[in-house]
Amino acid sequence: MTMISGAVRTVTAESLTDIVEAMFARVGMPAPDARFMGECLVDADLRGVHSHGTRYAVNYVRSLQKGTWNPKPSMKIVREKAATAVIDADRGAGHLASKFAMSVAIDKAKMYGTATVSVRNSNHCGALAFYTQMASDAGCIGFASTTAGRLMAPWGGVDRIIALNPLSWAAPTNKPWSVDLDMATSVIAGSKLGMAIEKGEKIPLGWALDENGQPTEDPAAAQKGTLLPVGGPKGYGMSVCLDIISGVLSGATFGKGLGGPGGGQFFQANDIEAFVPLAKFKMLMGDLVDQIKTSSLAPGSTGIFLPGEIEWNNKTKRVKEGIPMTGGVMDEIEAVAREIGVDCRLKDV
Amino acid sequence: MTMISGAVRTVTAESLTDIVEAMFARVGMPAPDARFMGECLVDADLRGVHSHGTRYAVNYVRSLQKGTWNPKPSMKIVREKAATAVIDADRGAGHLASKFAMSVAIDKAKMYGTATVSVRNSNHCGALAFYTQMASDAGCIGFASTTAGRLMAPWGGVDRIIALNPLSWAAPTNKPWSVDLDMATSVIAGSKLGMAIEKGEKIPLGWALDENGQPTEDPAAAQKGTLLPVGGPKGYGMSVCLDIISGVLSGATFGKGLGGPGGGQFFQANDIEAFVPLAKFKMLMGDLVDQIKTSSLAPGSTGIFLPGEIEWNNKTKRVKEGIPMTGGVMDEIEAVAREIGVDCRLKDV
Repeated sequence: MTMISGAVRTVTAESLTDIVEAMFARVGMPAPDARFMGECLVDADLRGVHSHGTRYAVNYVRSLQKGTWNPKPSMKIVREKAATAVIDADRGAGHLASKFAMSVAIDKAKMYGTATVSVRNSNHCGALAFYTQMASDAGCIGFASTTAGRLMAPWGGVDRIIALNPLSWAAPTNKPWSVDLDMATSVIAGSKLGMAIEKGEKIPLGWALDENGQPTEDPAAAQKGTLLPVGGPKGYGMSVCLDIISGVLSGATFGKGLGGPGGGQFFQANDIEAFVPLAKFKMLMGDLVDQIKTSSLAPGSTGIFLPGEIEWNNKTKRVKEGIPMTGGVMDEIEAVAREIGVDCRLKDV
Repeated sequence: MTMISGAVRTVTAESLTDIVEAMFARVGMPAPDARFMGECLVDADLRGVHSHGTRYAVNYVRSLQKGTWNPKPSMKIVREKAATAVIDADRGAGHLASKFAMSVAIDKAKMYGTATVSVRNSNHCGALAFYTQMASDAGCIGFASTTAGRLMAPWGGVDRIIALNPLSWAAPTNKPWSVDLDMATSVIAGSKLGMAIEKGEKIPLGWALDENGQPTEDPAAAQKGTLLPVGGPKGYGMSVCLDIISGVLSGATFGKGLGGPGGGQFFQANDIEAFVPLAKFKMLMGDLVDQIKTSSLAPGSTGIFLPGEIEWNNKTKRVKEGIPMTGGVMDEIEAVAREIGVDCRLKDV
């Protein structure tokens, strides 16, 4: 990525979706897949999760042009039991594989009460919250994890062989939003280093070590070193377990280049009705949310939020008012769109 | 609990199991249940997880004497689909309910590929690693969580309404031990405060806040305040999600006294063969373990360990050499055993 301006451009969700869709279609994706990619990436930006949004679009387009990503994958279930499936994503976009996998998990959960679907031979899948939200919308508790970039060291070691593997849970409430947690097992998502570099900002101590294992505030030095796991050995342990369920169990790549082809994902849906009546569950979830939100505030606190609530607030506002994006990222999307012959333009607000 | 000596008594696993078994039998548990309780609690001590071991035995005995725990529960599946079940634990020991639930989950996973079993009307269940280890021993990846003591505040709040809810994953390897992670969503397990008080030790800053929301090194002050979630908002978010799956979904108590009766647990088993051949999985797990363990050591590091490995090392050693226990805890067990008419004695080594 070239030098990128940190200035903000506020663009409409529609125009951002359209240009990203057109770019993916232009490099060979079938129209419905390209549309989904646009919607899925813009959803992350709408929610304020820019680390997993359209800032990846150009990278994905390049991967599709180079053929490291397959624009027309034939995604298939390659191993199956009543409540489980393994999907080979045929080197397609992880987003498409993940949507497919969670759809299968939801369908199976509706029949058997719960289901697990794993994915191999996949790629980066964006924000997991998108797929667990699908489960929540279907009256299920969703869980997802994925293999990710290896930017951490084992606890007590220095080699960069432990991944930031995130996890996500989502569950419906009686509010317009779901509880939806989506977090990396590192203190921060890896892409936050790139974002800090783009904006010319320092990073706080406690995020990362440099290549000599020393604490650093320089995001570029951190990119050469390792990110720190959340809670030290706990984050390291969680990352290993998520590598096992997302990578080893699916038959994908795990560790540093071990196992089978491509990235791996893991999706679970538990149909709430199999455990308690859904209406009662949602009512009880409302009680839980209310109890938490009405806790006395800590000194200096501006409010208490449930996982996913701030993201929903962002989305509600940005659908109407546009999405404030890093200007350089938007400029680059427009430049690459022109380069590959897409004549969409972003609409600034 | 009265003043307790911090001196160490090293006792044999057999004698500790026998006395705990006899105590539970004496207060009304059927013989096989009492035996299991002894084995399960001593397993935690063998693994070095004293926070969840026999130090709880006297509390449990008192609860059984008072009738807040039911010594002869009729645990039943009260809601069921092919790959799911909800168990009512009838106010019995959470350990017995959890063993039952994970057994059902494993059986169902062998048929359908995956299974989820939740438990309501339950009690404290000890260390989750015990139950995920059951799944691992059966060729499954196990996952477990439980509702727990409410000793944290929501992120941005001060009220003590967020639980330490732990989670556990376990998976088999080609080593004699399984990867088995078992961690609370707080920086430390709540019982570590009591253990620090017993030993007359300070706690590190970063574990807890006092009742005024100020950092403290005094474990007694911390018991009046709140424990800190691991990774700040991440630990808070995980705790809420685990409350949802363990408490809301099961129909048990969640939040601060919301929902149905008793504690709740959540168990999942994924049959590895439903995803990849088990022999291949174990071989690949061995590769992962070896890759991690042969990472270059950080300065000052004494070695790299997988989750569950140190606990297995402890167990291997302590089965032969005895278990070093807090003397006061052992003295109290012997005193209460005598009080209730159990004539077993611990065997010191």
